[in-house]
Amino acid sequence: MGSDYGLPRDLSHLQKARSFYKPSLPPCLQGTTVRVEFGDATTAADPSGAQAISQSFPHTYGQPLAHFLKPTSIVPDAQIINQHPAIKVGLVFCGRQSPGGHNVVWGLHEALKIHNPASTLLGFLGGSEGLFAQKTLEITDEVLTTYKNQGGYDLLGRSKDQIRTTEQVNSAMAACNALELDGLVIVGGVTSNTDAAHLAETFSQSKCSTKVIGVPVTLNGDLKNQFVEANVGFDTVCKVDSQLISNLCTDALSAGKYYYFVRLMGQKASHVALECTLQSHPNMVILGEEVVASKLTIFDITKQICDAVQARSEKEIYHGVILLPEGLIENIPEVYGLLKEIHRFLRQGVSIDKISSQLSPWASALFQFLPPFIREELLLYPESDDSAQLSQIETEKLLAVLVETEMSKRLKEGTYKGKKFTAICHFLGYQARGSLPSKFDCDYAYVLGHICYHILAAGLNGYMATVTNLKDSLSKWRCGAAPITAMMAVKDCGRASGSMTIGRPVVHPAIVDLRGRVYEVLRQNATKFLMEDFYRNPGPLQFDGPGAESRTVSLCIEDLDYMGRIKELNVYLDKVRCIVKPGCSQDILKAALSAMSSVTDILSVMSSPSNGNIN
Amino acid sequence: MGSDYGLPRDLSHLQKARSFYKPSLPPCLQGTTVRVEFGDATTAADPSGAQAISQSFPHTYGQPLAHFLKPTSIVPDAQIINQHPAIKVGLVFCGRQSPGGHNVVWGLHEALKIHNPASTLLGFLGGSEGLFAQKTLEITDEVLTTYKNQGGYDLLGRSKDQIRTTEQVNSAMAACNALELDGLVIVGGVTSNTDAAHLAETFSQSKCSTKVIGVPVTLNGDLKNQFVEANVGFDTVCKVDSQLISNLCTDALSAGKYYYFVRLMGQKASHVALECTLQSHPNMVILGEEVVASKLTIFDITKQICDAVQARSEKEIYHGVILLPEGLIENIPEVYGLLKEIHRFLRQGVSIDKISSQLSPWASALFQFLPPFIREELLLYPESDDSAQLSQIETEKLLAVLVETEMSKRLKEGTYKGKKFTAICHFLGYQARGSLPSKFDCDYAYVLGHICYHILAAGLNGYMATVTNLKDSLSKWRCGAAPITAMMAVKDCGRASGSMTIGRPVVHPAIVDLRGRVYEVLRQNATKFLMEDFYRNPGPLQFDGPGAESRTVSLCIEDLDYMGRIKELNVYLDKVRCIVKPGCSQDILKAALSAMSSVTDILSVMSSPSNGNIN
Repeated sequence: MGSDYGLPRDLSHLQKARSFYKPSLPPCLQGTTVRVEFGDATTAADPSGAQAISQSFPHTYGQPLAHFLKPTSIVPDAQIINQHPAIKVGLVFCGRQSPGGHNVVWGLHEALKIHNPASTLLGFLGGSEGLFAQKTLEITDEVLTTYKNQGGYDLLGRSKDQIRTTEQVNSAMAACNALELDGLVIVGGVTSNTDAAHLAETFSQSKCSTKVIGVPVTLNGDLKNQFVEANVGFDTVCKVDSQLISNLCTDALSAGKYYYFVRLMGQKASHVALECTLQSHPNMVILGEEVVASKLTIFDITKQICDAVQARSEKEIYHGVILLPEGLIENIPEVYGLLKEIHRFLRQGVSIDKISSQLSPWASALFQFLPPFIREELLLYPESDDSAQLSQIETEKLLAVLVETEMSKRLKEGTYKGKKFTAICHFLGYQARGSLPSKFDCDYAYVLGHICYHILAAGLNGYMATVTNLKDSLSKWRCGAAPITAMMAVKDCGRASGSMTIGRPVVHPAIVDLRGRVYEVLRQNATKFLMEDFYRNPGPLQFDGPGAESRTVSLCIEDLDYMGRIKELNVYLDKVRCIVKPGCSQDILKAALSAMSSVTDILSVMSSPSNGNIN
Repeated sequence: MGSDYGLPRDLSHLQKARSFYKPSLPPCLQGTTVRVEFGDATTAADPSGAQAISQSFPHTYGQPLAHFLKPTSIVPDAQIINQHPAIKVGLVFCGRQSPGGHNVVWGLHEALKIHNPASTLLGFLGGSEGLFAQKTLEITDEVLTTYKNQGGYDLLGRSKDQIRTTEQVNSAMAACNALELDGLVIVGGVTSNTDAAHLAETFSQSKCSTKVIGVPVTLNGDLKNQFVEANVGFDTVCKVDSQLISNLCTDALSAGKYYYFVRLMGQKASHVALECTLQSHPNMVILGEEVVASKLTIFDITKQICDAVQARSEKEIYHGVILLPEGLIENIPEVYGLLKEIHRFLRQGVSIDKISSQLSPWASALFQFLPPFIREELLLYPESDDSAQLSQIETEKLLAVLVETEMSKRLKEGTYKGKKFTAICHFLGYQARGSLPSKFDCDYAYVLGHICYHILAAGLNGYMATVTNLKDSLSKWRCGAAPITAMMAVKDCGRASGSMTIGRPVVHPAIVDLRGRVYEVLRQNATKFLMEDFYRNPGPLQFDGPGAESRTVSLCIEDLDYMGRIKELNVYLDKVRCIVKPGCSQDILKAALSAMSSVTDILSVMSSPSNGNIN
């Protein structure tokens, strides 16, 4: 790792222009007063795990939601914070770089200085390793100059994304104590925010005065729940990927002779693949969540693609674009079984060349069937979150080879009469991850940075910074904070397989909801996309003019405003209370009692632990 | 191939906004009068081949340059064309799609209709195959609506890029006769323009009245010579590729653990790789032209990269980005020898599995040394221009494997003491080729389309449409036409190896000039790029705001204004004539005679056939 972090850089015209762009703040964060309103105490999303979570987090479970309010808004219970002593805050990038991350640093730095110029922000160099080693860079206006609205994590760097073992947690605490930090901000995805929650609890137990805050930054877009609508980086990555996918569609259509198999980065969940499909309209996408739900084998998937190729050939079409999420491979039941066996042997220290002979007969047969390149990739050591090294497994090549073999077979048998099938494979991920962040990601990250300060000013620990109503314009964004424990579950309730760690409460990656609105839109259009080459090119990411302000399709379609709907409910409750006051008629009281008693019954049954099915 | 060419499409916001953009015309093309000035008769760029070329092209060799002038400009010899009978023109996309190609169609269609609404433009469907089969689509305003300023060739499609065999030429002539075409416009690169020149000559010999015109459209940027400064598509492709390379640089710097090996599309010449290097400042680029000039073996190249990795490791840097042009593989002398042997056997019909046993001992040793995946790729049938299937040969993987092996060896031997070397490979090409064209490519292609009409109105045959002074703003562009024969050579004078066809005059791809200004800039910065991570991100292609009007670095640095310099020379000659008039002193006359006699001597020696070294 170089020691050149935070050095000024040579910027291109566009980079320079972007570095001058300054995001606005929503009205609730303007001015120098922090006004916070506390909502109801939170529970855990997983009712069956609520007790276990509350036991694991005695100090940080059940804390209330926090909402940051306009300086002028009149809310009776709102706490007004006028005192802003100088504080010292540390920030660490954890996990994979996601476009926009730099703006969290900028937003937080600016908020700190506005409220007290004597406050300081330290960035840990080289991710969690820098945290353990107490390697810091003081963030100043000068340091930030060439990093504002720029992609990557190269201002501070990152390394391993784990703060989990006792040794790691103790090193982190030692660093916070030694540096006398009032706050530690952890920028990352589900794993890093889980670590943040555990760290917050441990700090609290150990009377370490550093408050820990998480920020939802991950290109995977899988840190989604009732409180978090979107993640920093997802917007940019989907736009960059969609541009490239659309270019491939145009290319395929122009040449009329290739099928492009495109694998997309995004870890276990298929959010990136789904969003890109809705932006670019490629011919086909195979979501990991669909494969799990329908228990499709690798042969089913191959057949599905071959049938599509054949159907298109009947219309004299010999090109196409097919998207595959990188998590797909783990979602194919028999491959998942094989991976689990391999990973067990690897963790036992069995050497790679001996693993294949020790596999169960069933897994061994599958392993021998697979082409050599994919065998090698399946033998890679698993990631720190127990998943396979998804970015290194070329699922797109595997499927291309299988489809090619099957099409040749059909050709020989005479069941397929078209031209030779030719596939070209691509993996999109690294190209998008380092992109200049979109306007949305710049704004979102900057605002989240400001919120981190507000959370610290309110003295909160174990919270995640949140913004809701993101699909609306920035002036209507609502800013708040939610306890990370409220997003945790003890076991993975999702339908996608993967690491089902029972016992330790974690923030699980949200998978694509097959009953949700976004997936419904895909289903409605799937046949049209497949047969009609209804390609659409969102074009390169723009910072001015048409498209510059666009949001992801998922964000626009999803009905996300959880807190808005809770408020809506409260309005109903208030109305009932208002109508049924002493003096109202017996009939009205009777009707109200009967109706409310039945509502209460229904909700009680639905929320009982035995009925732990959540979204 | 689908039959859906030219159908209206669903456009994204940005695509729609782009479809409303209308390029301007340089002053010389405005209005409805065509004014053309003819320059001196042209010669061939290759003096030693001039005779052979003139024999091959008795009807079309030696024609003068044409310049299209402002309606108001006062040039005594300019021919003014006021009569514009209705004409019928055909257009065919030949070879690989290049962003901007659609705008040639638009520009030509618009020019035809302005001068006579009864004129028609027919697009051939599916490239040269559509030409042979006389499959056409009449171009109308309505057809063009959703294709203006859009990428790809999907308005008309393309297939094989060859119109060369007697049968093909006859089919083309039959189509032109049957459809009663006054003009045939061939949109493509060096191969297609060579075909255009031969077609023009054959048509002229056979009294076919169709005039043939070439348009320089190729993402490779290798159709460059005294008359052609740039090719449509190169600007866009380099910008899209540079964005992705820069994103990879940011990614590499953030994670600090990967080396990215990136292969770039661009055929034999390394223009794309050179331009992207100057836009993105990756750590290293290996140009095919350098490899040929220094006669580097595959081991030399491996060592060069390993030494760079080692030097960086001494600064504790374990990441990097290395660019490789796709043509590199053919430029490595020993691999080129091997490829030639393989291609000879393939053309003789030797089956693939028998080739390795028939190779010369020397080629066989190399073949056996190479990893299996690259062996398979080297055995692919060569392209129609005799080169290997460069897009399918994963040179980046080959080098990554060789470097990895060498670094492991050095690690064992103790000569390398750093961390494990890890490479990730990418091939950028297809992703860029289908992009929305940059403003420059939109404008350039649209203007070239207009020029095609002017060429036809002037009754010229075997010409290429040209625009010079491209680095300046559009209002200063100079429009003209040059006989394609003037760009031909009988043998490839370039230093890059490849298909050296002796005998048939062809337009050769221009290779990177190692004595040129662009390469000089690279050399001056090479050490800085290698050691200092001086990465620069031009960002995604913009259509508004900063960067939207930018030109390629190559275009800005190169001293391209050939015609401008010829004019400058004429100014000197006129000045001498003016000073040395009857009445001037004997001394002046003596000095002038002596100086001019020596100049003439020098130039005569330089231009003699035995001294055929050209730029």
